[in-house]
Amino acid sequence: MSNNNRVIPVILCGGAGTRLWPLSRKNFPKPFLKLGAESLIAQTVRRAAAVVKAVGSEDILLVSNESYQFLLQDECTPVLNSEGGNIALHQLLEPQGRNTAPAIALAALWAQTKYPNEDPVLLVLPADHLINPVPTFVQVAQNAVAAARKGWLTCFGIAPTAPETGFGYIQQGAPVDELNGAFAVQRFVEKPKLELAMEYLASGQYVWNGGMFALRTGDVLQALTQNEPAVALQAQTVWAGAKETKNAKSTGSAFAFNKDEFAKLPDISIDYAVMEKASNVAVVAASFQWSDIGSWAALSEQFSADSKGNSLQQEGTGQLISIDSSNTHVRLGNRAVAMLGVENLLIVDTPDALLVADKSRHQDVKKVVETLKAQGSELVNFHPTVHRPWGTYTVLEDSSGYKIKRIEVKPGAALSLQMHHHRSEHWIVVSGTAEVTNGENVFLVRKNESTYIPAGNRHRLVNPGVLNLVMIEVQSGDYLEEDDIVRFDDVYGRA
Amino acid sequence: MSNNNRVIPVILCGGAGTRLWPLSRKNFPKPFLKLGAESLIAQTVRRAAAVVKAVGSEDILLVSNESYQFLLQDECTPVLNSEGGNIALHQLLEPQGRNTAPAIALAALWAQTKYPNEDPVLLVLPADHLINPVPTFVQVAQNAVAAARKGWLTCFGIAPTAPETGFGYIQQGAPVDELNGAFAVQRFVEKPKLELAMEYLASGQYVWNGGMFALRTGDVLQALTQNEPAVALQAQTVWAGAKETKNAKSTGSAFAFNKDEFAKLPDISIDYAVMEKASNVAVVAASFQWSDIGSWAALSEQFSADSKGNSLQQEGTGQLISIDSSNTHVRLGNRAVAMLGVENLLIVDTPDALLVADKSRHQDVKKVVETLKAQGSELVNFHPTVHRPWGTYTVLEDSSGYKIKRIEVKPGAALSLQMHHHRSEHWIVVSGTAEVTNGENVFLVRKNESTYIPAGNRHRLVNPGVLNLVMIEVQSGDYLEEDDIVRFDDVYGRA
Repeated sequence: MSNNNRVIPVILCGGAGTRLWPLSRKNFPKPFLKLGAESLIAQTVRRAAAVVKAVGSEDILLVSNESYQFLLQDECTPVLNSEGGNIALHQLLEPQGRNTAPAIALAALWAQTKYPNEDPVLLVLPADHLINPVPTFVQVAQNAVAAARKGWLTCFGIAPTAPETGFGYIQQGAPVDELNGAFAVQRFVEKPKLELAMEYLASGQYVWNGGMFALRTGDVLQALTQNEPAVALQAQTVWAGAKETKNAKSTGSAFAFNKDEFAKLPDISIDYAVMEKASNVAVVAASFQWSDIGSWAALSEQFSADSKGNSLQQEGTGQLISIDSSNTHVRLGNRAVAMLGVENLLIVDTPDALLVADKSRHQDVKKVVETLKAQGSELVNFHPTVHRPWGTYTVLEDSSGYKIKRIEVKPGAALSLQMHHHRSEHWIVVSGTAEVTNGENVFLVRKNESTYIPAGNRHRLVNPGVLNLVMIEVQSGDYLEEDDIVRFDDVYGRA
Repeated sequence: MSNNNRVIPVILCGGAGTRLWPLSRKNFPKPFLKLGAESLIAQTVRRAAAVVKAVGSEDILLVSNESYQFLLQDECTPVLNSEGGNIALHQLLEPQGRNTAPAIALAALWAQTKYPNEDPVLLVLPADHLINPVPTFVQVAQNAVAAARKGWLTCFGIAPTAPETGFGYIQQGAPVDELNGAFAVQRFVEKPKLELAMEYLASGQYVWNGGMFALRTGDVLQALTQNEPAVALQAQTVWAGAKETKNAKSTGSAFAFNKDEFAKLPDISIDYAVMEKASNVAVVAASFQWSDIGSWAALSEQFSADSKGNSLQQEGTGQLISIDSSNTHVRLGNRAVAMLGVENLLIVDTPDALLVADKSRHQDVKKVVETLKAQGSELVNFHPTVHRPWGTYTVLEDSSGYKIKRIEVKPGAALSLQMHHHRSEHWIVVSGTAEVTNGENVFLVRKNESTYIPAGNRHRLVNPGVLNLVMIEVQSGDYLEEDDIVRFDDVYGRA
């Protein structure tokens, strides 16, 4: 086999939005959270691009739920533009989450199809990890790729810094000849109890399973066929029915799948399906700083604490008043938060939901989400600001008989040509210029101008300019839900 | 002297809005907080009306800052209407707060002026106490009036239920002959330390000073002249310059005062100026349930706790998710609040500010307010919903270049005829009907209709109907502060 198999970063973008609620929601999960200047997914794409440039390849593949298609493009395209080069961003759009083994199988089939004679190495990366510095990551990734090119199913071992009970561990065996920083894997162990985790830490033989992999396409498909044939077979069926779809803003391709066939994929992780069973498994020493931001405790550690141990996550215009309080992490939005005489708390303030939790209970935030889910609450699914292919809308007030939204349309973007049966809409432009279709007429609405869309009128909103368009929409009617919409035409394929 | 001196309840309506922040603000202090179906001031007026009906008199006098004139009328007029009878509501409008001695002196001068031959008894009541049941209060008040009619400066003694260190105490002396439940006062004591408070409680001789008084006009003015002549003299000067003003919605009179003369009134309490010094001081046993709602701890006690000691103050559509939490009081507005593994907290959620405090620190909420005040924050002064004589406005969004308000106008009410130099306004009626003056034109704007007010146009908004008018206003311009207003005419005397 060639020692120059093409390298393709495969970014797995999932997440239920439970552990970092109320900041993460089902429709805005952890990869989209900003940490520092960019979202976690943007940082992940930037790291992947650095590897692509280092090894001289040209593709990045995102595997995500189909509902994230445009949000992912919005996050990733600017990164690739700023990185320069000609890296194509491809997308596999899952109708539902079926865990990592099916996702990686489909990624392998996509790579095989695209490069049938090159047996590419997939560099599998979760979309929501925090890793620094990037050059160290690139070096470790190249070590992993080198191992994969030798036929090893290669995982990344993170040097443990504490007896963590929330991660799986890998026991390292002998170093692999001629490979930098690579060891044979002796065994995988599930999340241990604290005592065992302390032993592992003391022994120096164990590393954390970082959930990243370098896998040669042929090797991983063969290992799946051998160990979990149901995954391998059904993935082939699903891939055979894949349809290339519109990928509005990307230079790459996008594929959607048959929903019913996809649902038949077993829900199983690559660790369980392959890594824990195969014999040709190696682990490379990952010497970078790493966090999976797996809880509010982990997230809060990314913010420097003051002399009293308080950390501030400032994400809006809000103000913190702190009196006699300690060891507390506060996420501020646009409201003022005053804390008085409290300690060891997480205070997470968002526009429609507040979390106040004892810091030690960070793993139980998911219980809050489960409670809300059981009640059918939309607070687990959406923020008041909802992302659309053309921009965002934010519900400012939802009252009896009327609803107020702020609508922001990106330059050049267009909402669908649509009609509502039960509501009229007053549109007021407060920034930028709108091109409005209202019934038979098409006209411009400038800043500080307005127009009225009666119920039943076909209408469309376009931002023809180069600046963001900001519009206030006041809906009036007896039924104001999102499902009162008839779409006649849509540039994003939603009609 | 007559035994039938006319009885006039005098309600002192002050409050800095500090101890119950963020629910109370300077422009919306404790008397306006709803507890149960009505605000504290409404409940106070209802109690006062019950006394007026029991003794067969006909006036209630409110002493407050002038900024509360219309808000007080909005709160109190419906109460008096529902109580029937012909009780007139009068107002003394202070340009600034100068404590209770000057307020009571002015009330006495007002009463003497109105009823020069009747030497009325003032029944002085704070506007922000919670008292139940009302019939017991009426009986106690009549006992106090009877003592006042015998020439006693009479205060109300609350039977202590705990060794409170936040109240002044009164040591009771011998019972007064021929007077029901009245005792001579042996001495007043300032807020005691805990040990002393425990002794007082155990002795059975001490009661709490409830801040309520029955005072014959002539007696209190004489006592002031004797003990604090500066108050008595300056109050006469201020009263001589009083001006009767428009009292839009009340059957009673309203008086405003010269600001400079008012500022010369000494800042002193009636307790310190008179009660602690005079010899003819009595205390009547107040056998009703009483709370001064003087802190979040006192307020939270008004809400029944569940088996874990959690109490919920539900004042909006928000939802509480409570997991493994105890002894915590939550004030809910329209947002969801989740608490996880916390205890002994106060969580007070309002639209623009959140308080998270250890319950034991309830007396230090004022420190938060002091901090905000030192920073010049408007969070200590206003809620997002601001009360005006004609109704309310609520800022929904305040952004660069535009501002969105929900404006609610009461039936029959009218905003001033006004003009703005720097902003245009888009008005959209979402409920009710508006009569709009826009430049030279006057026309109706119905539900789901809109109009546009260009900068520089004179305009006026009137609600000509019998239902509330709700209008969404989108302001557009480079300067959007409240002080960009020229008023040409105003039914509330603000032009």
